[in-house]
Amino acid sequence: MIYLDNAASTQIHEDVLTSMLPYLKEQYGNPSSIHRYGRLAHKAIEKARKQIALLINADPSEILLTSGGTESNNTALNGIALKKPLSRIITSSIEHDAVLEPCKKLSKNGFEVIYLPVDHFGLVDIKELKNSISEKTSLVSIMFGNNEIGTIQPISEISKICQEYKIPFHTDAVQAVGKIPIDVKELGIDLLSISSHKLYGPKGVGALYIKNGLDIPPFILGGGQENGLRSGTENVANIVGFGMACEIAMKNIHENFSYVKNLQELLIQKISDEIPQVTLNGHPQLRLPHNVHFTFLGVNGEDLIIKLDEHGIAASTGSACSVNTQKASHVLQAMGFSHEQITGSLRLTIGIYNNQKEIDQTVDVLKKIIVELRAVSPFKEKYSFV
Amino acid sequence: MIYLDNAASTQIHEDVLTSMLPYLKEQYGNPSSIHRYGRLAHKAIEKARKQIALLINADPSEILLTSGGTESNNTALNGIALKKPLSRIITSSIEHDAVLEPCKKLSKNGFEVIYLPVDHFGLVDIKELKNSISEKTSLVSIMFGNNEIGTIQPISEISKICQEYKIPFHTDAVQAVGKIPIDVKELGIDLLSISSHKLYGPKGVGALYIKNGLDIPPFILGGGQENGLRSGTENVANIVGFGMACEIAMKNIHENFSYVKNLQELLIQKISDEIPQVTLNGHPQLRLPHNVHFTFLGVNGEDLIIKLDEHGIAASTGSACSVNTQKASHVLQAMGFSHEQITGSLRLTIGIYNNQKEIDQTVDVLKKIIVELRAVSPFKEKYSFV
Repeated sequence: MIYLDNAASTQIHEDVLTSMLPYLKEQYGNPSSIHRYGRLAHKAIEKARKQIALLINADPSEILLTSGGTESNNTALNGIALKKPLSRIITSSIEHDAVLEPCKKLSKNGFEVIYLPVDHFGLVDIKELKNSISEKTSLVSIMFGNNEIGTIQPISEISKICQEYKIPFHTDAVQAVGKIPIDVKELGIDLLSISSHKLYGPKGVGALYIKNGLDIPPFILGGGQENGLRSGTENVANIVGFGMACEIAMKNIHENFSYVKNLQELLIQKISDEIPQVTLNGHPQLRLPHNVHFTFLGVNGEDLIIKLDEHGIAASTGSACSVNTQKASHVLQAMGFSHEQITGSLRLTIGIYNNQKEIDQTVDVLKKIIVELRAVSPFKEKYSFV
Repeated sequence: MIYLDNAASTQIHEDVLTSMLPYLKEQYGNPSSIHRYGRLAHKAIEKARKQIALLINADPSEILLTSGGTESNNTALNGIALKKPLSRIITSSIEHDAVLEPCKKLSKNGFEVIYLPVDHFGLVDIKELKNSISEKTSLVSIMFGNNEIGTIQPISEISKICQEYKIPFHTDAVQAVGKIPIDVKELGIDLLSISSHKLYGPKGVGALYIKNGLDIPPFILGGGQENGLRSGTENVANIVGFGMACEIAMKNIHENFSYVKNLQELLIQKISDEIPQVTLNGHPQLRLPHNVHFTFLGVNGEDLIIKLDEHGIAASTGSACSVNTQKASHVLQAMGFSHEQITGSLRLTIGIYNNQKEIDQTVDVLKKIIVELRAVSPFKEKYSFV
């Protein structure tokens, strides 16, 4: 199998699994217990917290451990919003559902939510951001890099504007952390969501960076773990694995970036060169290194994925997280794509375990499949497919 | 080490870990992806859902997967409450903080929360339950078996009352599931919280049983996993392990019950016989099979745990989940214990990996430690310790 769905989930790094195993075997203590078993589990969590913090240049005390990126986003949005009832929240129209859905709920509860438009590359309109800010604004939440089309937002610019108006700035950086260097201090970020399984760590664990001094109320209530900010017995093994994944990502970030970026460029080049009537979606430069997103004229993306799967290639039309719902991508809609352009799109996301041979094979298979699908396309004559 | 803190967390069963490993290695797909990797992950989750459902005689469609017992409780309480704003919620004064804290928050938001009193054994006052029910009541939430003193509530009686008044009945059964046979249909339970790591499964995963027909709104919002009821990429490996833990628990429930119950009786008998001036707390019969809870007159429980730990025995004063806060047990307070009785208490919780030799050794060590601690107790003369 050729796995090109690394934006949906990644393979756990071997050293990550090795680091987890003691906590799935003999180190089974509850971190809140005061005996030796508990203390060892507690110590392991605090080590992981440091590893996670280092990756984004945060202080360990600024890392809140959660069950994943979705919970991190829910915690950030609910937390900030609840501090200022009925306030205005500014976000973008291309956020992940883990931001959009909490926003919808807040909107139902009397909050005002502004969804910033994006251009054809998926870049947020900065002027609109400035225009949208009012005294009522409690939060700006704009993603770091988009999960579907890979466009990286001008985070520094956004954070400067937020700082100017003293509005907390949250960014869903689930797709970006571990892939590109991120320094929360330098970038002026107040809250940042991370997911472990997007960076070669285990599923079911994530973090929310909360800048020191920014108090938010807890989302999940109970025994008071995580300094009262997130209750529930800690998922020790997964947290340890997450920490190790961050340490490995940190160590190899430039090397991995170059490696994946090279494969990305190769894949984009080959598809553009060898397959006619295709368009690269997203921004050509301001782009996550692992994301490749094309529209293949006259072809249905779902058919493409099924055919690729039959040929042993794992791909996606867009966000895996809502693929089951089969709804048209709200990201591509916001970018002004037609229904036909949306349904003809394919996302291929590269990881450190892919290699050049796989890229070559994928393009060979794609070429063949596209010809087959276009031969039976309802748009065959319209676009003069041969 | 002798591990007698199985109510805080349990060792993962060997077969559980074996079942998880493929999903920590080669089966790393996102269950929402439509390619082969995704489908295999999805299938694994659905198998686990069946295994979990079987253990409590539910339908798989009634099992909502969560990040643990705390999230399950939060989901149940918020879900039901939000359907009936400003309603009355009836719970007990000895619930876990994962129920009490969400109740406190609801109370701040205009809900009325009634905390039912308990008797000296920790049994909820059923007459008070009946008296507390009004037309405003939206939910009754009473735990199955108590995490500190092990008392099992009259669940059938409570559910009958709830059915009579058509009020949904939630029970936090985190300590009971997998330890004693539970049939949600027979018991008439509407919502029931389960935690994996209390029944020899991994941490960071749990479930909420939601009776078919009872709609509740989601707690964590996003990509719409779990039929829209719980968003976030599923923790596949841990869910698979949780499922396997339920299957194993189901298969061995009577055997394990007898085994643990025997050790419990032995431990209670030996402590009562061999150590003077001790009191067994909780109900003598209506008790979880793994729970032993004593007050040792004139001794500080914290000192006891530290001394036991030095002798290689892992124990707890009460709930591990809030032990770091060092606050006096609200459970023992509700049962009418004096401050001295509370601070002198020790919880020893047995698991399937304990054996008779460990029980004997524990009592030997306890005897010795108690003598040492009583020799320097401030109550030495008051209680004529020798």
